Amino acid sequence: MTDVALAFDLGGTELRAAMVSSAGEILSFLSVPTMAKEGPAAVLGQMEKLAAEILLRSPGMAPIGIGVGAPGPLDPLSGIVIAPPTLTGWHEVPLLALLSERLGLPAKLENDANAAAIGEWRHGAGRGATSVAFVTVSTGIGGGIVADGRILHGRRGLAGEIGHMTITSHGDRCFCGAIGCFEAVASGTALGKRATADTRPFDGSKLRALSADGDVTGRHVVEAARAGDPQALELLSVEAHWLGVGFTNLLHLYSPDIIVMGGGISNGFDLLESGIRATVEERAMSAYRSVPIVAAELGRHAGLVGAASLILHGDGGPALAPDPSRNSGAESPADLKEARHG
Amino acid sequence: MTDVALAFDLGGTELRAAMVSSAGEILSFLSVPTMAKEGPAAVLGQMEKLAAEILLRSPGMAPIGIGVGAPGPLDPLSGIVIAPPTLTGWHEVPLLALLSERLGLPAKLENDANAAAIGEWRHGAGRGATSVAFVTVSTGIGGGIVADGRILHGRRGLAGEIGHMTITSHGDRCFCGAIGCFEAVASGTALGKRATADTRPFDGSKLRALSADGDVTGRHVVEAARAGDPQALELLSVEAHWLGVGFTNLLHLYSPDIIVMGGGISNGFDLLESGIRATVEERAMSAYRSVPIVAAELGRHAGLVGAASLILHGDGGPALAPDPSRNSGAESPADLKEARHG
Repeated sequence: MTDVALAFDLGGTELRAAMVSSAGEILSFLSVPTMAKEGPAAVLGQMEKLAAEILLRSPGMAPIGIGVGAPGPLDPLSGIVIAPPTLTGWHEVPLLALLSERLGLPAKLENDANAAAIGEWRHGAGRGATSVAFVTVSTGIGGGIVADGRILHGRRGLAGEIGHMTITSHGDRCFCGAIGCFEAVASGTALGKRATADTRPFDGSKLRALSADGDVTGRHVVEAARAGDPQALELLSVEAHWLGVGFTNLLHLYSPDIIVMGGGISNGFDLLESGIRATVEERAMSAYRSVPIVAAELGRHAGLVGAASLILHGDGGPALAPDPSRNSGAESPADLKEARHG
Repeated sequence: MTDVALAFDLGGTELRAAMVSSAGEILSFLSVPTMAKEGPAAVLGQMEKLAAEILLRSPGMAPIGIGVGAPGPLDPLSGIVIAPPTLTGWHEVPLLALLSERLGLPAKLENDANAAAIGEWRHGAGRGATSVAFVTVSTGIGGGIVADGRILHGRRGLAGEIGHMTITSHGDRCFCGAIGCFEAVASGTALGKRATADTRPFDGSKLRALSADGDVTGRHVVEAARAGDPQALELLSVEAHWLGVGFTNLLHLYSPDIIVMGGGISNGFDLLESGIRATVEERAMSAYRSVPIVAAELGRHAGLVGAASLILHGDGGPALAPDPSRNSGAESPADLKEARHG
């Protein structure tokens, strides 16, 4: 029997859990709305319950460990979630120690973008590469870098914060306070803002029709462009330019074998691709120009598959094993050992 | 006896060789003007001669291998120098195979910026760190990145090309063809250009006095600023701003434990430091703001010390061992085996 791992993708909106095989298959899957405003104890309770349910649905399967993707900033080496803006009351939470103790299994942690990067590298669009730059373009821009066969951590696991790389001197101030962040000019939010500024409610435009005359989002732009709307196509051409500038930087800085683009805006990758490539051709030094730039393949499951891969392929930092002396007397609402053998 | 290695720093102007101890000491040193216009065979001949002389000057020392720093682009894994602009006629030269065969020792290769980064990491300003961003600011801007305890290579060893990271939409076109490269706004050349544009021959300025009323260089600006010249101090303040913008990107992208600045302009590091820090404080996300930014310590020997470290500390990619079947019959102008035992 092939090894399996229990994987969590802890988001500010949704908490997902899955049993994942070493081939990257999702064998069972559950999700609940994250109790993001209730603090860490409530969310840990949710994770325990989900784990128990997943195990009950996976008879005969004994996961060899738990892989977790969670919002950054977090320290994958110590297993501490530092202070994610989307989870209220989380401040330096030793999530790995808590989970490993409660569930009685070795556990590993990565930030969500790194987990998705590992998923796409092991089982998605980055298969077979040694170095992968994974970029997720949606509300913000995040990234995870596989460099020379392993995830790039840096100090406190904070490498790959590519959304806050300065690429221009223009544009709206980023929420981080700086001007010219990649995220501030190329995220789905930035695309939506430009589309909203380009149109007016009830102006009869395709974009405002799709947004019911409210603010236009990046997704509306992709949808309108797909229907051939010239205004939306022009907006995507500007979007592709900025993505190309940022991606060129990633080529020069990390020299990946491939750039993989995920996130909501990657639904429009086919419409953006030629513009991105034209900008890279224009700006990248010749040795970097031929590097493939492709859309992600695993969609919303990339983070779960990557989290499982931490356990199943030994990716990321060292695992935290449960402390038997502490675990022996722990009362767990979910009796995992029993469930695992049921 | 401690291990020693033979190190080369192959530059477009100067070819340096040294015997280096595992503690990073230069035990003997020689340099010659590089026969950069004569092609690879001439330079290889120079390297053989230097090796023989260094060995003659180091009685009783038997180097365990040869470490080489050479101008990029080069592929450290295959040991091939791809096409350095400063060496005429070098195109896909298998330098490692040639050197290893001729000198009968295992050999390793890194580009010069990576070699200097390893030198500063092992024995200089980056001692004890796990991740180091080394930036050399002189005619251009180069870099070498130590990430999670090893040099970052990426595809074909081309990672860390930080001089061609886009950080603005303004300024002169870079020699690479793009606008807004870090190098185009923050190199010593860019600083000199701004100083030259700010002054006129015979205008009585301190800067033109130092340049004998010719073009002003970055070094003149540092010298004038050190003497308290207000115009030069203002130019350095602009320089520090651009360095701060680029360094902030390096923090977000690589999350190093420390940034080490080398190159000619680092002679003015004490004058630039507060301006660099102010920009980083303003632009970096809070988790990155406390990272130390310091001047390099090893000066022009960083590359030699780092090249030796490839052998002595196992840094960089795998070593290329000489092929005994080919070497046995090789006629070498320098009889190294004899020299080594002399």
